[in-house]
Amino acid sequence: MGKSLTLKIIEKKIISGDLSPTNEIAIKIDQTLTQDSTGTMAYLQLMRINPSEIKVKNALAYVDHNMLQTGFENMDDHEFIRSICKKYGITYSKPGNGVCHQLHLENFSKPGETLLGSDSHTPTCGAMGMIAIGAGGLDIATALSTGKYYFKAPHILNIKLEGELIPPASAKDVILFILKEYGVKGGIGKIIEYTGSGASSLSLTQRATICNMGAELGATTSIFETDEKTYEYLDFQGRSEDFIKLKADVDAKYDQFISVDLSSIKPMIAKPHNPDNVYEIANINGIKVNQVAIGSCTNSSYEDLTKAAAILKNKKVSEHVSLVIAPGSSSILSMLAKNGALCDLIDAGARILECGCGPCIGMGQAPNTNGVSLRTFNRNFKGRSGTDSADIYLVSPEVAAASALKGYITKDVPVFDIGIYKKPSLAMQNSGFFIRNIADKNQKIIIGPNIKELPVQSIPNENLEFNTVFIGGDNISTDDITPSDSKMLPFRSNIEYLSSFCLTRIDEDFPKRAKNNNPGLIVAGENYGQGSSREHAALTPAFLGIKAVLVKSFARIHKSNLINNGIIPLTFENPSDYEHIKMLDKIKLSDISINIGSKDSFQITINEIPTKVRLEISQRERDILLQGGFLNYISMKGENY
Amino acid sequence: MGKSLTLKIIEKKIISGDLSPTNEIAIKIDQTLTQDSTGTMAYLQLMRINPSEIKVKNALAYVDHNMLQTGFENMDDHEFIRSICKKYGITYSKPGNGVCHQLHLENFSKPGETLLGSDSHTPTCGAMGMIAIGAGGLDIATALSTGKYYFKAPHILNIKLEGELIPPASAKDVILFILKEYGVKGGIGKIIEYTGSGASSLSLTQRATICNMGAELGATTSIFETDEKTYEYLDFQGRSEDFIKLKADVDAKYDQFISVDLSSIKPMIAKPHNPDNVYEIANINGIKVNQVAIGSCTNSSYEDLTKAAAILKNKKVSEHVSLVIAPGSSSILSMLAKNGALCDLIDAGARILECGCGPCIGMGQAPNTNGVSLRTFNRNFKGRSGTDSADIYLVSPEVAAASALKGYITKDVPVFDIGIYKKPSLAMQNSGFFIRNIADKNQKIIIGPNIKELPVQSIPNENLEFNTVFIGGDNISTDDITPSDSKMLPFRSNIEYLSSFCLTRIDEDFPKRAKNNNPGLIVAGENYGQGSSREHAALTPAFLGIKAVLVKSFARIHKSNLINNGIIPLTFENPSDYEHIKMLDKIKLSDISINIGSKDSFQITINEIPTKVRLEISQRERDILLQGGFLNYISMKGENY
Repeated sequence: MGKSLTLKIIEKKIISGDLSPTNEIAIKIDQTLTQDSTGTMAYLQLMRINPSEIKVKNALAYVDHNMLQTGFENMDDHEFIRSICKKYGITYSKPGNGVCHQLHLENFSKPGETLLGSDSHTPTCGAMGMIAIGAGGLDIATALSTGKYYFKAPHILNIKLEGELIPPASAKDVILFILKEYGVKGGIGKIIEYTGSGASSLSLTQRATICNMGAELGATTSIFETDEKTYEYLDFQGRSEDFIKLKADVDAKYDQFISVDLSSIKPMIAKPHNPDNVYEIANINGIKVNQVAIGSCTNSSYEDLTKAAAILKNKKVSEHVSLVIAPGSSSILSMLAKNGALCDLIDAGARILECGCGPCIGMGQAPNTNGVSLRTFNRNFKGRSGTDSADIYLVSPEVAAASALKGYITKDVPVFDIGIYKKPSLAMQNSGFFIRNIADKNQKIIIGPNIKELPVQSIPNENLEFNTVFIGGDNISTDDITPSDSKMLPFRSNIEYLSSFCLTRIDEDFPKRAKNNNPGLIVAGENYGQGSSREHAALTPAFLGIKAVLVKSFARIHKSNLINNGIIPLTFENPSDYEHIKMLDKIKLSDISINIGSKDSFQITINEIPTKVRLEISQRERDILLQGGFLNYISMKGENY
Repeated sequence: MGKSLTLKIIEKKIISGDLSPTNEIAIKIDQTLTQDSTGTMAYLQLMRINPSEIKVKNALAYVDHNMLQTGFENMDDHEFIRSICKKYGITYSKPGNGVCHQLHLENFSKPGETLLGSDSHTPTCGAMGMIAIGAGGLDIATALSTGKYYFKAPHILNIKLEGELIPPASAKDVILFILKEYGVKGGIGKIIEYTGSGASSLSLTQRATICNMGAELGATTSIFETDEKTYEYLDFQGRSEDFIKLKADVDAKYDQFISVDLSSIKPMIAKPHNPDNVYEIANINGIKVNQVAIGSCTNSSYEDLTKAAAILKNKKVSEHVSLVIAPGSSSILSMLAKNGALCDLIDAGARILECGCGPCIGMGQAPNTNGVSLRTFNRNFKGRSGTDSADIYLVSPEVAAASALKGYITKDVPVFDIGIYKKPSLAMQNSGFFIRNIADKNQKIIIGPNIKELPVQSIPNENLEFNTVFIGGDNISTDDITPSDSKMLPFRSNIEYLSSFCLTRIDEDFPKRAKNNNPGLIVAGENYGQGSSREHAALTPAFLGIKAVLVKSFARIHKSNLINNGIIPLTFENPSDYEHIKMLDKIKLSDISINIGSKDSFQITINEIPTKVRLEISQRERDILLQGGFLNYISMKGENY
């Protein structure tokens, strides 16, 4: 039986563990990337670990999120990251260079290598035949320090693409179609491997769009085989030597198989407020549009923007539409300038934003009240745009440009030819935006007043007593625990400040009560910690003295973040016990070394009444909890991690 | 005795009054401009006046300030202005088109005409031989409704420029030199008329830089004669038919005369925190720079940015410098893209921001803590950048670009040649950013939830009683009265919200106290209301029920704003009475129709104790106060204004 491409790469990189699905394995990490909004925390953690040297071949620190700089906090963060990069020998990408995933694809992606990034859209580089996985900042700090990443061996899902796209259908429509069919949980625990003649027909940046939005399927990552299109892309970037041909065996075994005929795909649209709320556009013509936004790590490539330019050339954006375009990289912006596409966009009335994430992460360009915004981005969650009342639709650049002209959502994309723009012979080389550093241990770290030291993790006492300081219901999200928007994002490196907003959406007195009744216990219902992977949702309760969380069930990533921050993730043995617990009840948990150290199930007391709880985690995770958190654990393990 | 150019134009436009200095005159206004941060209020006022038609030849509404859009408020304001423009037949410049003054110079400036703009840098178009004056939003609404503007006939100051600039000295250095010599009050009450062979040697955009920063001298406006350089500029813009030759008579009489030899001017720098804190750069080499910003209405022309590009070409911005460039207009951005200058800027590592005011008004790009930022802008007041601890220096684009390369402030500008960039044969025509409207009375006005109706002005009772609700010291500024920064600016059309911050920098309970003790009196010392011209500093106290202000002395513009909003501006006859007044003292002002209507000096009682006060205003202003404010007054006067 043959092997999938995924398996071939992982087998080469595996360090420990058995490659059977859901088993914990460790793989060697070749490359890491961070962006600034998660990077500040990752590098504070790296400073705490303070490795003698960086253990990955290529480490990148991008600045693409917090670039509006409405106060000192953003640039202080940039300076902090810049100085960290000099100290540890990490390549620094200055703000204005573009979006991390686009830049990484252009400049550093390499077939057959592994990439770990502190951003959920890191799988974009799967287009280059890499295993590229998004993870938390602490995972990146650990990978930088040890060269390793632990994760559960995934199922491998093969999506065989057949036929060819019929314009104006595009790569965005392919992934929207898959989201329509399989939903935002369709990829959980899976690596998606794209194969087939249809895959070969797609350009590299089209493949990148598809891998990018695999994140919306919940997939661990997505990957394409490499071929002459891969070679052409690398060659254009002046990196042909990085090419290797990678293919799955013809008789490769997969855990699951799906076939998609590209020729059957029509222009699609994700309606508010979820990326899997997808329809064929033909069904929803006639909605008036206030704003159109083209860009983001999903659809901001040279190809995407020249398509938009070709459609807009010699025409005018509708009077009532604000069209904003954020190019994916400085190199793309430069190419568009060189070949006239940029002038055509400007002449039509397109606002050219700085190269970066921008409106995709709610950093500016919030639509008007009750506005309709058509975006080429990857997420359309309610409120993410900065305007709670706005309706965000996700579409391809072709549909976005056509609708900007018409002023209404339309599937009728004019016939266009990107051949009118001559692609420059060479991408921008030797850009002033990349600072390639050699580690300098004497480099002083620049720490602005908004960047606070990480809270210290302490080894727990053998017998613990805590107070119940929060009682919540089901489905409490990481957004509830640590809000994230353009007002909060500048404070990602200030756990103290962020903690004053912890859980206040649900219980505005929580931060004060937790501080006054330290150590504390959080109690909640099902699916506690759902949503984004942000580790701040564990860091802020830890800062407020929370030592354990007792719930009916956990969301997976948040549970792991709690462990990393020394918070014991307990579940009720008998869910009905949830009903009996009251605010400020006293909790006792005895014999930590035995109960936490080895038992799936044990007894605690709630106001002296014995209650059974469960602790379902790996031995490695038990050891982390006994050390008070991951940073203590790794400093103990050192090179043996 | 011959006439100055200023006099020749004003004589053609005068409607009423006698042209002797400091006398109130009314002139015909040909053109108006607004930007969005002052425009929303101006158009709310226009709606209240609701004229049957617009009385100026050309009315422009630009959006260039609030373009970050971190919440719904900004785009709601844009939509409001867009709809107002359709209703009244005002040309709308969509966000992304660029900075109002640059755009107006390019597209609408016309020798010999008058321009009134709700922005202090409106005098920029003086470079085109116009009388271009900055004023409050209400003045614009009034000019739109009546075609008139009342102001005090100014002194005319002739600055005769001789010799020629020796590169790298530039226009920015000329105006910095004048600021060094005459200070930020050197132009108050004056129109500055530039003449001489040195003036002829300057390009039109160089002249615009000089007129622009005349605002920093406090001048009413600045003006240059027209010549073949004016013609060339207009011709390039496809508007050669707008050219007329305008010169002062050779024996023109001026109120004041200064001569400046351009060949003696060296590269200059304004050090923190005032634009007249000017030195020759030669004296201050060696300061490390964190940020360099090129742009703003002062220095963002095609010429300025190609200079920067020629200096940066094939080089790299210093590792520790963040260089940001905000082009003055979409047309300039398009030209830079066409001729390769933009690519050179990008390749060097310059961040290309959207065309607009951006960092000049603190809208983004706040420097790091204690950072040094070198800017080609017009103001470097403490905190205006968004970072209180930052040091802002003002320089020319040449010095900015050279310093960005070096990483330190330097006077050593490399020799450069902008001839390497071929100027496109035609500026951008027929841009998708301009919406030229024909008035449509049926147009619905789009009013978002943050745009609140103007408070109603009520005719005062014949006998007034009020409570003392604020007692302050000397030099209270309009910033103290109504704070303005990136957090407050989105609320310029929401007087209710802004009023909750009124005077809270000095007395945090003021808004509450004023509401609870309505009607109220504000008491303060010397120079009350100094600083910016923002009328919100009168609108917010009016909203809180303030009916009079009693101080030792007023700043001129604020006094006029108080009158327009129906607040009686009283001064102590005997300044020592200030000492006796206490919080919540009861004030009585009787026989309004006589005292306010005609008396310079009369008696009020403070807690029953008679106290003499003064009211030094024109008869027109007395009539405004008796109507409760200007909007009531003009609705009464109608066409007779």
